[in-house]
Amino acid sequence: EGVSLARIGGELRCQCVNTHSKFIPPKNIQDVKLTQSGPHCQNVEVIATLKDGREVCLEPTAAWVKIIIKAILDKAQGNAH
Amino acid sequence: EGVSLARIGGELRCQCVNTHSKFIPPKNIQDVKLTQSGPHCQNVEVIATLKDGREVCLEPTAAWVKIIIKAILDKAQGNAH
Repeated sequence: EGVSLARIGGELRCQCVNTHSKFIPPKNIQDVKLTQSGPHCQNVEVIATLKDGREVCLEPTAAWVKIIIKAILDKAQGNAH
Repeated sequence: EGVSLARIGGELRCQCVNTHSKFIPPKNIQDVKLTQSGPHCQNVEVIATLKDGREVCLEPTAAWVKIIIKAILDKAQGNAH
């Protein structure tokens, strides 16, 4: 079901073995972490922490992932003080 | 200088007391975490971990923050396999 997140040697390697392709409703998502590619991993990685605590790798090139990230940021527009 | 990140009681409260307003070049950023607002904090929070290990709160409504997030995702476009 949820894509297992391979924590191989902490954060010194790619953390995502494969990505979760099915849409995840933003209300199930607690946070999303975007990690730049670098010496540790040549892929950009997007890891969502769900409200139930699971961590799921998302495909950075998927349109719905970009929409979710935009939705989170746009929600901040509302609470801009 | 860098905005201190107040880790008050772990992740059970808002983590950002204020936000770093100056532009941070994407090459200095290791990862960016977007946290949804919720019972723990009514603000959407964007926390960047810099390559030097510092954590900096970014303003989610700032245009340059959105540009940086888009740039990170767009870079993934290149390494889509």
